[in-house]
Amino acid sequence: MTQANITPTTFLQALHQEIQQTKYGNEPVELYEPIRYIMSLGGKRMRPLLTLMGAYLFGDDWRKALRPALAVEVFHNFTLMHDDIMDQAPLRRGQPTVHEKWNPNIAILSGDVMLVNAYELLTDVDTPHLKRVLLRFNRTAAEVCEGQQLDMNFEQRWDVTEAEYLNMIRLKTSVLLGFALELGGLIAGADETTTALLYEGGVNIGLGFQLKDDLLDVYGDPAKFGKQVGGDIIANKKTFLLIEALQQATGPLRAELTGWLERTEFDKAEKVQAVTRIYDELGIRALTEQRINDYFAQGFANFERLSVDPDRKALLLDFAEQLIQRES
Amino acid sequence: MTQANITPTTFLQALHQEIQQTKYGNEPVELYEPIRYIMSLGGKRMRPLLTLMGAYLFGDDWRKALRPALAVEVFHNFTLMHDDIMDQAPLRRGQPTVHEKWNPNIAILSGDVMLVNAYELLTDVDTPHLKRVLLRFNRTAAEVCEGQQLDMNFEQRWDVTEAEYLNMIRLKTSVLLGFALELGGLIAGADETTTALLYEGGVNIGLGFQLKDDLLDVYGDPAKFGKQVGGDIIANKKTFLLIEALQQATGPLRAELTGWLERTEFDKAEKVQAVTRIYDELGIRALTEQRINDYFAQGFANFERLSVDPDRKALLLDFAEQLIQRES
Repeated sequence: MTQANITPTTFLQALHQEIQQTKYGNEPVELYEPIRYIMSLGGKRMRPLLTLMGAYLFGDDWRKALRPALAVEVFHNFTLMHDDIMDQAPLRRGQPTVHEKWNPNIAILSGDVMLVNAYELLTDVDTPHLKRVLLRFNRTAAEVCEGQQLDMNFEQRWDVTEAEYLNMIRLKTSVLLGFALELGGLIAGADETTTALLYEGGVNIGLGFQLKDDLLDVYGDPAKFGKQVGGDIIANKKTFLLIEALQQATGPLRAELTGWLERTEFDKAEKVQAVTRIYDELGIRALTEQRINDYFAQGFANFERLSVDPDRKALLLDFAEQLIQRES
Repeated sequence: MTQANITPTTFLQALHQEIQQTKYGNEPVELYEPIRYIMSLGGKRMRPLLTLMGAYLFGDDWRKALRPALAVEVFHNFTLMHDDIMDQAPLRRGQPTVHEKWNPNIAILSGDVMLVNAYELLTDVDTPHLKRVLLRFNRTAAEVCEGQQLDMNFEQRWDVTEAEYLNMIRLKTSVLLGFALELGGLIAGADETTTALLYEGGVNIGLGFQLKDDLLDVYGDPAKFGKQVGGDIIANKKTFLLIEALQQATGPLRAELTGWLERTEFDKAEKVQAVTRIYDELGIRALTEQRINDYFAQGFANFERLSVDPDRKALLLDFAEQLIQRES
């Protein structure tokens, strides 16, 4: 039997309270203030919400997953802090990045201690489940680093294949979403078949989610998207769409595409329009939507096979549906 | 009863084999090659040796401490990789640093995955001891980061007190030596009084060891020291000796000292000679030797109180003695 009044808002409120309460450390302030800063910048908190929903699938004792859920969010923000140094990004969620607001050394060291904090929060799981949780988290954390390294490697290459790109986003983004959901099951002591389904389902939803990110940048509704449509095109960012276009375009269309990629001075709106037209001619939009739908369908098929209370599962399915339908 | 043929060399050989065998990861190579590189540069391997000796105090099953011992060494080398970026150090153990040989981004990300590797190796301890080991390691790892931040903060200050300096080196260096030794006891399931003595003893030996480092830089025998005597003086490095001198010197002696610190062009040998003479006049050598002896005596007093087989303890005491007597 489920608790009648549980909604995703219940989880989000409990999570916000946990984020507020958590002490990351005090002295020296240069080390711990950037952690509080980046954690306060917000975000969708998708990962810890998945952990709480994963735990709720198996019973009402989801609150004991709060600190481990926060571990995943702290780990995610650690990767953002270090990625921003590597990418020399000036802004994160519209605010100055840590290496800009303080300096790169502080961003390196605060990030390091955040990774330790993530392990500390994770250590809170019940002893019988701890080793299993750690083995899965260690693997996931290493893969996220591998994904970031591949992403950096791909910046230097124009011949990245679809398979390589999908492997990169799987590692950089999706495995952590999969682990976040699996963690809820691990904490509840779910069996291996079940935790594997949670993980696979989460990874598939994550892959669809990341490809939708690439799609919305080009084909999003400017009134709803929140960011500048075409930002990835302007920056020559190697998205799924660009990689497909580079793999498929031949003749004059290819020359036109590479021409836009090589130009250093251009009218932004003109470039966005031109590259979008090339994508249209190559049928990239439909192809991308197909891949997104395939991944989401696989994710839902994974969740379908979970033997849990249907009312509890409905909460997870609704949340996944929201991720799929998003327009920003 | 002890194994008759166990010597520190037994531990070191087993450790070298473990370092050789350990797979840190494969793809992408940019991520994992720097780990193999820095781990191959050598060093005294003091920390993992302490772990093995700690485990041996309680029985012959010290080999099960090998992977956790290596975790401490991997963690230590992770801190070196990141510290070298922050300090813009060109060389480490006479070889190019990772950020020089590759680039800073690779050094950041390889370091991150090394920290994950350290946790992975540590996860190898028996389940009943895992939570206790993690709680202690998490605390230690955070403190090492705090020590590095304090060290960077102190570079900007000329009024660092003795207490502040001792706290900084305790965090940056000594707590990890203490934890390394304690870890051997934790793995063997030793009680809290015993693990606390191991930790305190290791921290005290570590503090003496670090102060001896500062001392040898000025008063070491050039034939035995291995590095250039006076290197810290040339670089204005804030050692225990300089901090004491800055706290004690008054009048013309203080003016002379700060004069040497502010000069950007100077004859190196002349500066080393002049600052050493100031230290001599202030009695800094005797003061430093006194502090070193005090810490070593405290460490040995901690070890004295350990209720373990005297033959096993003798191995640890001999090793600590070597650390104390070192001239390089």
